[in-house]
Amino acid sequence: MLEHDAYSKWLGIEIDDFRAGYCKLHYTVRADMVNGFKIIHGGVLFSAADSAFAFACNISGQVTVALDVHISFIKSAFIGDVLTVEAKQVHAGNRTGVYDIITTNQAGETICVFRGTSYKTSKAIFTEEG
Amino acid sequence: MLEHDAYSKWLGIEIDDFRAGYCKLHYTVRADMVNGFKIIHGGVLFSAADSAFAFACNISGQVTVALDVHISFIKSAFIGDVLTVEAKQVHAGNRTGVYDIITTNQAGETICVFRGTSYKTSKAIFTEEG
Amino acid sequence: MLEHDAYSKWLGIEIDDFRAGYCKLHYTVRADMVNGFKIIHGGVLFSAADSAFAFACNISGQVTVALDVHISFIKSAFIGDVLTVEAKQVHAGNRTGVYDIITTNQAGETICVFRGTSYKTSKAIFTEEG
Amino acid sequence: MLEHDAYSKWLGIEIDDFRAGYCKLHYTVRADMVNGFKIIHGGVLFSAADSAFAFACNISGQVTVALDVHISFIKSAFIGDVLTVEAKQVHAGNRTGVYDIITTNQAGETICVFRGTSYKTSKAIFTEEG
Repeated sequence: MLEHDAYSKWLGIEIDDFRAGYCKLHYTVRADMVNGFKIIHGGVLFSAADSAFAFACNISGQVTVALDVHISFIKSAFIGDVLTVEAKQVHAGNRTGVYDIITTNQAGETICVFRGTSYKTSKAIFTEEG
Repeated sequence: MLEHDAYSKWLGIEIDDFRAGYCKLHYTVRADMVNGFKIIHGGVLFSAADSAFAFACNISGQVTVALDVHISFIKSAFIGDVLTVEAKQVHAGNRTGVYDIITTNQAGETICVFRGTSYKTSKAIFTEEG
Repeated sequence: MLEHDAYSKWLGIEIDDFRAGYCKLHYTVRADMVNGFKIIHGGVLFSAADSAFAFACNISGQVTVALDVHISFIKSAFIGDVLTVEAKQVHAGNRTGVYDIITTNQAGETICVFRGTSYKTSKAIFTEEG
Repeated sequence: MLEHDAYSKWLGIEIDDFRAGYCKLHYTVRADMVNGFKIIHGGVLFSAADSAFAFACNISGQVTVALDVHISFIKSAFIGDVLTVEAKQVHAGNRTGVYDIITTNQAGETICVFRGTSYKTSKAIFTEEG
């Protein structure tokens, strides 16, 4: 999936581990990822976690999309920090699922926690957000 | 704020309106903002909404950060779509606030709804995510 | 639905208006609904909003359940307050929906805002939370 | 706290363990806690988790309130089920905190997952929701 995902490539994501319901990846905070306070933009933290979420839940044949997400921002990250993102399945129902995605920095400190609800569509062609 | 916000500049955000507790902006979906399904990455939708949130709540002297956010993805957006993001204050307490941020496309359709909790710090130097 | 909903009856909910995708109800804060700080327990605020959510999205033939909810607590309510809860559909997809539920007091002040994601099951018999 | 919390007493909560940033409790699903589908009302699941959250974060001298909560409903519970609720601190900042609260049934199955953001007030008298 990563090869065809232009935005995840922009994020500089590198996949470390990947199986059904699980994904671990890392990336490095760059100068073009920070906001006016010189810390990582919340949108970048969300984005990398959202990519891990998408990779973890799109291993079946059917397109699975994010319905909604809750994210709590805990600690700032700065240019040069190497952030690890780990996505784990909490629950998989027939159609819907719940995933926890945690981002930590190189010191093992939690940067943000992300909980997403997924929805497995019945279509090959994509009609909702993911 | 936008001038010093490298990532918001990457998003191509243009501010349309801006006052205390309010921000309206727009941006155009580019080829480097989509995921493997050729639709806008959820992280980009979140990011632009998060920028509007930050602009709306950082008009006071004190640094205000996002504590947590809930986002619901409703409709896909595609390359070339022009998305409008409107952030409104729902509540402003002493230190914390609640904001609703809605993203619509050029047809006026709702793409996603974002609700954020803000926290006004007492410091000039930034120590938490925003 | 209310007649068979033992817990909503305990809440003392009275329905004011009710149609597909919409429900308005009110209830009065009682002494057995408060916490140790003598203000309404967050669980009661959630519960009444969740009932309005369920009533608004269960007007079709299929059982519709809550997948997840985000609630922001804005202002306290006290014994004797009359709280009005208004549930509105933000989005209805094939299977999933998004609803906004707002609780206000007798002075028109916002007490809490609740956003829920619904899922329409294909079954008559209930297997998930609602 | 439990002795003075009328609503938590209605819930029939029994505390199993309790220390700073942590609380474990259980309760039994009664006939007056179910909805029209004869399963536990989502509001009751939220309420018991919210009580555990409040107990875990109110061990310091200052009143700590819930700012907002995200809850995902995973599995139904029925009359007679014994539900265990475990609240753990994920993060404690100066003023704000993040807690995870998980509810399981007597078979060890996850019923719902709750993530709450807390705010430590500077007052003895309570002005916001909790």
